[in-house]
Amino acid sequence: MEKKAEKKQEKIEEKGKKVTFNISKEKNFSEWYTEIVQKAELGDIRYNVKGFIVFQPWSVMSMEKMYHYMEKTLQRKGHKPYWFPTLIPEKNLKLESSHIKGFTPEVFWVTSHGNDEPVEEKLALRPTSETAFYQMFSLWIHSYKDLPFKTYQRANVFRYETKATRPFLRSREFHWIEAHCAHESEEKAMLQVKEDMETTREVLHDIFGLPFIFFERPSWDRFPGAKRTFAADVLNPDGKVVQQPSTHLLKQDFAKGFNVQFKDKDGKDKFVWITCYGPATSRIFASVIIVHGDDKGLKFPWKIAPLQVVIVPIKNEKKILDEAEKIKNNLEEKDISAEIDLSERSPGDKFYFWEMKGVPLRVEIGEKEIKEGKLTLFRRDIGKKEVISNLDLLSYVDKTSKEIDKNLIKQADNLFNNRVVDVVDKKQLKDSIDSGKIARCGFCSVDEDGAGCAEVIEKEVLASVRGTKLEKETPSGKITKCVICGKKAKEVVYVARQY
Amino acid sequence: MEKKAEKKQEKIEEKGKKVTFNISKEKNFSEWYTEIVQKAELGDIRYNVKGFIVFQPWSVMSMEKMYHYMEKTLQRKGHKPYWFPTLIPEKNLKLESSHIKGFTPEVFWVTSHGNDEPVEEKLALRPTSETAFYQMFSLWIHSYKDLPFKTYQRANVFRYETKATRPFLRSREFHWIEAHCAHESEEKAMLQVKEDMETTREVLHDIFGLPFIFFERPSWDRFPGAKRTFAADVLNPDGKVVQQPSTHLLKQDFAKGFNVQFKDKDGKDKFVWITCYGPATSRIFASVIIVHGDDKGLKFPWKIAPLQVVIVPIKNEKKILDEAEKIKNNLEEKDISAEIDLSERSPGDKFYFWEMKGVPLRVEIGEKEIKEGKLTLFRRDIGKKEVISNLDLLSYVDKTSKEIDKNLIKQADNLFNNRVVDVVDKKQLKDSIDSGKIARCGFCSVDEDGAGCAEVIEKEVLASVRGTKLEKETPSGKITKCVICGKKAKEVVYVARQY
Repeated sequence: MEKKAEKKQEKIEEKGKKVTFNISKEKNFSEWYTEIVQKAELGDIRYNVKGFIVFQPWSVMSMEKMYHYMEKTLQRKGHKPYWFPTLIPEKNLKLESSHIKGFTPEVFWVTSHGNDEPVEEKLALRPTSETAFYQMFSLWIHSYKDLPFKTYQRANVFRYETKATRPFLRSREFHWIEAHCAHESEEKAMLQVKEDMETTREVLHDIFGLPFIFFERPSWDRFPGAKRTFAADVLNPDGKVVQQPSTHLLKQDFAKGFNVQFKDKDGKDKFVWITCYGPATSRIFASVIIVHGDDKGLKFPWKIAPLQVVIVPIKNEKKILDEAEKIKNNLEEKDISAEIDLSERSPGDKFYFWEMKGVPLRVEIGEKEIKEGKLTLFRRDIGKKEVISNLDLLSYVDKTSKEIDKNLIKQADNLFNNRVVDVVDKKQLKDSIDSGKIARCGFCSVDEDGAGCAEVIEKEVLASVRGTKLEKETPSGKITKCVICGKKAKEVVYVARQY
Repeated sequence: MEKKAEKKQEKIEEKGKKVTFNISKEKNFSEWYTEIVQKAELGDIRYNVKGFIVFQPWSVMSMEKMYHYMEKTLQRKGHKPYWFPTLIPEKNLKLESSHIKGFTPEVFWVTSHGNDEPVEEKLALRPTSETAFYQMFSLWIHSYKDLPFKTYQRANVFRYETKATRPFLRSREFHWIEAHCAHESEEKAMLQVKEDMETTREVLHDIFGLPFIFFERPSWDRFPGAKRTFAADVLNPDGKVVQQPSTHLLKQDFAKGFNVQFKDKDGKDKFVWITCYGPATSRIFASVIIVHGDDKGLKFPWKIAPLQVVIVPIKNEKKILDEAEKIKNNLEEKDISAEIDLSERSPGDKFYFWEMKGVPLRVEIGEKEIKEGKLTLFRRDIGKKEVISNLDLLSYVDKTSKEIDKNLIKQADNLFNNRVVDVVDKKQLKDSIDSGKIARCGFCSVDEDGAGCAEVIEKEVLASVRGTKLEKETPSGKITKCVICGKKAKEVVYVARQY
C-alpha cells in the first residue's frame, strides 16, 4: 500500500510539479507550518534583510479582506482612519519613561540621509505609535464635546526582534491596525476596553473563525505605560499560545506627558484617559492558517479566502470552457471571486493544488456534467462532493458559504474548548501543559506578591501565567489554593506555554 | 453691501465656528490650497518631523477609495498584490549605477537599533522598490511560461526632499502604488507601458476626473535606470504642472544586475525586460482637491467622496430625525455613504460646512418636506437645489451621481483643453507660460542635441520641456522650427512650468 502511494507521488513529481501536500499538522506542527507557508506561496523568507519577508499575493489578498472587516467594524463603532508618519522623534518616545524602557531595545533608528549626512534628530521607525498620536491629540482635543475621540490607523510597524522570527508569527516588520482613543474618565475608558474585546469577538471569532480567551495580564506582564493590559490568546496545535489583539487602559502619564487636556462640563481642565488596541493583521493571518489548516494544506473561511471558488474543467474543450466562463461571470456578478484553472496540470493535480491552497469551493465540469445540466461541487472544509443542477449554483453557493464558515468555527471552538483543563497542583499543571493544554488553576495573586509563584511556573513548567478573565471568576470547587505555593487562591488564572 | 457681508461673517464667528470658506482659487491659488487643507482637515502639518504630515480622516477615506479603484483595475489586468519590506540593503541600491546616483541624495538610512548598536548593514527606507522586487524576480521567474510576471504593491515610500514640501503634493513620506512587470521582449514591455497609460486614463481621468497629457520625457529627464520614461502632467490653476503617474521601460541593467533570466521557447536563457509604473495616491489626491475645488471649498467626484450624502435636518424634531434616519438607512443599504448632521450648528452653517467639505449631495428635510412627502436635494457640483418626491430618492441619487461625475469631468476637461496653446517663438512661449498655459511648439531634438535649447527654456522661460506624445506628432502648419534655436523641428514638444 505504501509502495503504491510512493509511486503515485513519483509520477506526479515526474511531471515537474509536486502538487501533493501531506504533513501531519498535529504531529509535526513546526514542519507543517514552515512547509505550507512556502508551498502555498504565502511569504518568501529569502529576502536579504534578516527578519523581513516578502508577503506574497495569496496572503496579501486574504489580509486585505481581513483589513476590510476590521476597518469596517471599527468605523461602524465611530473610529476615524488616519495615516501617521512612520518616523517618530526620539524625544517623543522618551516622554513616557516605562514606554521608552520597554521599546528602546527593539527600535530601528534612522540617523542619516543622502551621503551620510546626519538627520536633525534621531528618528525611530515606529514600533507602535502612542507617542505620535498623543502629541496630535493635544492639538485636536479641547472640550468634553470632542470626547470620546476615537481613531485608528492601518500601518506597518518595526521591532528589532531578538527571538527567532517566523513568517507572519513574528517578523521585524509587521502589518497591523492600532486604534487610539481618548476618554473623559477611567470608567469610560474601561467601556472602550470592553468594546475592543467585543470587536475582537465579532471579527476574529465570528468572521475569521478563531477561538481565544481574552485575559487581563498579571501586573508583571503589562504593556509599557499601561495601567491594565488585556490580550487574547489563541492556541496552536503544539499547545503553545499566540497573543493576538491586546487592548490597554493607559496610565495618565501619556496624557500628562503630551498635555492632552479637555475642558470638562464643570469648566475645569482635566487630562484624558487613553486606551489603545492593536490587532496585528499579519499575525492573525498566521492563526487563520494554523487553526483551520489540515494535513492537506490550507482551509480558508469563506469571507477572507483569497479565492472563493475555483472552477476546474475536466477537459480543455470549447463547450466545457464556455460553460466554465459562464459560471465564473455569474459568480463574479454576485461579488464572489472565481477563477478557472486553465493550466496544463491534470484534473487530479488541480484538485490537490487548490485543496492545498485552501479554496473553499471547487466546481468541476466535464462532458458528463454538461450533458446532464449538472455540476460537481467539492467542499474543502469537509472534503465531500455533491452533484447539483447547474441552475441551482448561486443558491447553493449562497447557502454553502454560510455553512462552511459555521462549520469551521464550530470545529475550531470544539478543539479549543477541549484543551482547557482544571488543575490543582504543580504536577497536574506540568502534565497538562506538557500535553498541550491551557491549564485553569488557583493562584495566590496577580499583583507583585504573586511574581514569585509566576517565576516558578516559568522555570519549572516552562509556561506563563496568561492572566484572569475580565469577568472575574471566584476560586471555588476544586480550585481553592494557589497551584504553586498552596496559599489561599485569590484568583483563578490560566497558564499556558507561549512562543 | 460689503458691510453687511462682514456683519454676517462676524455673527457666524461669534458662535465660535467660522464655517465659511471663500478664497479665490484662480487669484490666490497658493493660499487657497494651504487654507483648504487645514479647514477641511485633510492633513495636519504640525507633526514634529520636518516634511512629514498626519493624513486626517477626510483625506484617508477618499484615498482608501482611490486605492480600491486603482487596485481593482490593476488586478483585473493580471497584476498580483505583494507587500515588500520597507527596508532595502544599501548593496541592492548600488547594483544599478544610475539608480543609486539618482536616489542616494534622497535616501533616509537606518544605521542602528536599540541602544545605538549598529545594524549589520546600512538599510535604506525605500525611496522606490525596484531593487527589492527584482532580486525576488530572479528567484520567481524561470521560464517564458512565467511571463509576463505582473506585480504591484500598495506602499509608503520615503524621500528626503530638499525642495519645499507641501501637504499631499510633496512630502518626505508619501503613499503610492508601484507596479513592476517582467516581460520576454522589449516590444512586450512597451505594450505594458501603453497598458499603464490606459490604466491611468481609466482611473485618474474616468473615475477621479483628472485631465492630463501623457508625455515621453526627453532624454535628460528620464527615471534613473530607465531607457524610456513616460509621465502624465496635470495642470494647476496657477499654470504649473504636477507630475502624476509615470511608467518606465527600464534598461536591462536591472535584469542583468539582479540576474533575472528566463528560459525562452528556443531553450536559450535570456534577460527579461522590466517596466515599472507608479501612481502616487497622496499626490493624485492633491490634484483631485485642486482640479475640482472652487472658491467655496472642495468638490469630490461621487465615487471617491469620503461621504456621498449629508442629511441636514432643518430642525432637531423627532419626526424629522426619524425620517432622516430612514433615509440614511435606505441609502446605506445601496452602499451609498450617508450621515446625518446632528451638530448644534444652524442649518445655514451646516450648509456652508458640508459645501466646504465637498460632499456631492445634500438632503434637506424640514417640516415642509415631511408634510408634502418631498425632499430638497442640493448638488455641490452645480450649486443648485431641486425638490423631489421622497419616493424618488434612490433613483434620483442613482441618476444624479452619474451626472455629477460626468459634469466634473467635463468641466475639468474644458478648462484643461483651453489652456494648451500653440506657440512659434520664444516670446510667444514666454507669454503663454507666464499666463498659465501649456505651450505646444516645435523643438530641435529630445536627445542630447536638444539639451542646450532645453536649458534656455529652463533659464529664460522658467519652464521645462515636458516631452512628446507617444503617438508622435509631426511638425506641420505653423509649427516647423525649434522654438528656441530656429532650426528645423524634429519634434513637437510641450513646455510648461513645474513646481
